[in-house]
Amino acid sequence: MENGYFIEDLKIGMSGVYARTVTEADIVLFAGVSGDTNPVHLNHEYAFTTMFGGRIAHGMLSAGYISTALGTKLPGPGCIYMSQNLKFKAPVKAGDTVRATVTVTAIDMEKKRVTLSTICTVSDKTVIEGEAVVMVPSKA
Amino acid sequence: MENGYFIEDLKIGMSGVYARTVTEADIVLFAGVSGDTNPVHLNHEYAFTTMFGGRIAHGMLSAGYISTALGTKLPGPGCIYMSQNLKFKAPVKAGDTVRATVTVTAIDMEKKRVTLSTICTVSDKTVIEGEAVVMVPSKA
Amino acid sequence: MENGYFIEDLKIGMSGVYARTVTEADIVLFAGVSGDTNPVHLNHEYAFTTMFGGRIAHGMLSAGYISTALGTKLPGPGCIYMSQNLKFKAPVKAGDTVRATVTVTAIDMEKKRVTLSTICTVSDKTVIEGEAVVMVPSKA
Amino acid sequence: MENGYFIEDLKIGMSGVYARTVTEADIVLFAGVSGDTNPVHLNHEYAFTTMFGGRIAHGMLSAGYISTALGTKLPGPGCIYMSQNLKFKAPVKAGDTVRATVTVTAIDMEKKRVTLSTICTVSDKTVIEGEAVVMVPSKA
Repeated sequence: MENGYFIEDLKIGMSGVYARTVTEADIVLFAGVSGDTNPVHLNHEYAFTTMFGGRIAHGMLSAGYISTALGTKLPGPGCIYMSQNLKFKAPVKAGDTVRATVTVTAIDMEKKRVTLSTICTVSDKTVIEGEAVVMVPSKA
Repeated sequence: MENGYFIEDLKIGMSGVYARTVTEADIVLFAGVSGDTNPVHLNHEYAFTTMFGGRIAHGMLSAGYISTALGTKLPGPGCIYMSQNLKFKAPVKAGDTVRATVTVTAIDMEKKRVTLSTICTVSDKTVIEGEAVVMVPSKA
Repeated sequence: MENGYFIEDLKIGMSGVYARTVTEADIVLFAGVSGDTNPVHLNHEYAFTTMFGGRIAHGMLSAGYISTALGTKLPGPGCIYMSQNLKFKAPVKAGDTVRATVTVTAIDMEKKRVTLSTICTVSDKTVIEGEAVVMVPSKA
Repeated sequence: MENGYFIEDLKIGMSGVYARTVTEADIVLFAGVSGDTNPVHLNHEYAFTTMFGGRIAHGMLSAGYISTALGTKLPGPGCIYMSQNLKFKAPVKAGDTVRATVTVTAIDMEKKRVTLSTICTVSDKTVIEGEAVVMVPSKA
């Protein structure tokens, strides 16, 4: 069965996680699919002169892991992405393992909408925080 | 010169655009780098049964084009991504050409922060709308 | 044995071929590794307005097949790429099968240098023509 | 506006730059899209026995940065690649930051063709030198 949770099965506090190590290959491939060839991602000599002191991953790459947690873990396939807010708190570099955690914070049974806090961490540091709203299928 | 605009050069109403045709290759590669293997993106038979009637692109792929417009067009290299809000209004399918337009709506010279409206369209239809805040280097 | 031909084994007129179908995935990946996000390769709406009438592959992608023919077929591993001239004669589109043929045209035993004509074709049409010089190991 | 320079806007001596750090990911991905699996690029044990003393990047990968500088910086989108000559002067290794600089050396207003010197450097060392000819759109 490809489907994820039905809205009736969700409870506040339930959470899902997707974790992944960012490699140089991921950064190069994300540059290709997004078109974002900003030198802070691809040119070490340039990036070294910035406040980051070296190349950083695209913020939207880590943000994509939130989408992955929502679409493959909780609520999983069948939910529809309505909105996502993102605050980029700290940079991610190649070699970092990013952990995207999504946690149900509100359930609107009438509109079939679920709100989740969405946080990406590297070790103990929060790199992205935000909130997602998804529409979730109902058994009814 | 790798750098984009300085905050002193920006004016409300200035805009930058990144446009790109979404191909099946982009969807497969985005699935690979993000890990988002939700069958609505990759399994036609499953996707056919959903309200979309077929495979759709990842919302975060189109959102990535906003990041590209910010990081390579306006304000360009040197700006720092602070936050992004996204409302997903309509699906994008392979073959659609997505046009991400970012437009300066507010400039905070003191904090060196610039707010931009961020809209993705396919032909005349808005597929994503939202707002970004970036920190922009100053000449001072 | 990883090595290719020694210079003593080469004769004028010998040729090697590498052929490959260009896919949309190849174009997206080449955009990523090269950074060449020119809209003529990635944006159908833009490309449609050009003399090409649609997206074309990067010329350097097809040129890469010449390098592949030299480095893996003839003379093969062990040769050193000295120079390459390229004339881009016609565009290549996704779905085209490009055939890179390299043919020995001159051998300089003293300098251990070999000259090859290098032609890429799609069906009967020449898309790239040019000449390569490689240094080839000697048995001596 | 997607278009680059018109021929009327170009002057001898104008230059554009694309710079990028070559990573192992770039080498692997270039091997994939080009098919150039020469062991000097992919097999450290083999490459260690060669005059390079280790794996080197594909020459055509660095050559691709020239194409990027032409197609995205100067003259930018809208120009058509006519020819490229390349002399490979020194190897590039993973970790090197390659700087491709293209400089206008001749302008033929009648044929709408522009000649540019094309040089790739790593720090102060020239790794590729050559010349490109592109056709550039006219305002007329």
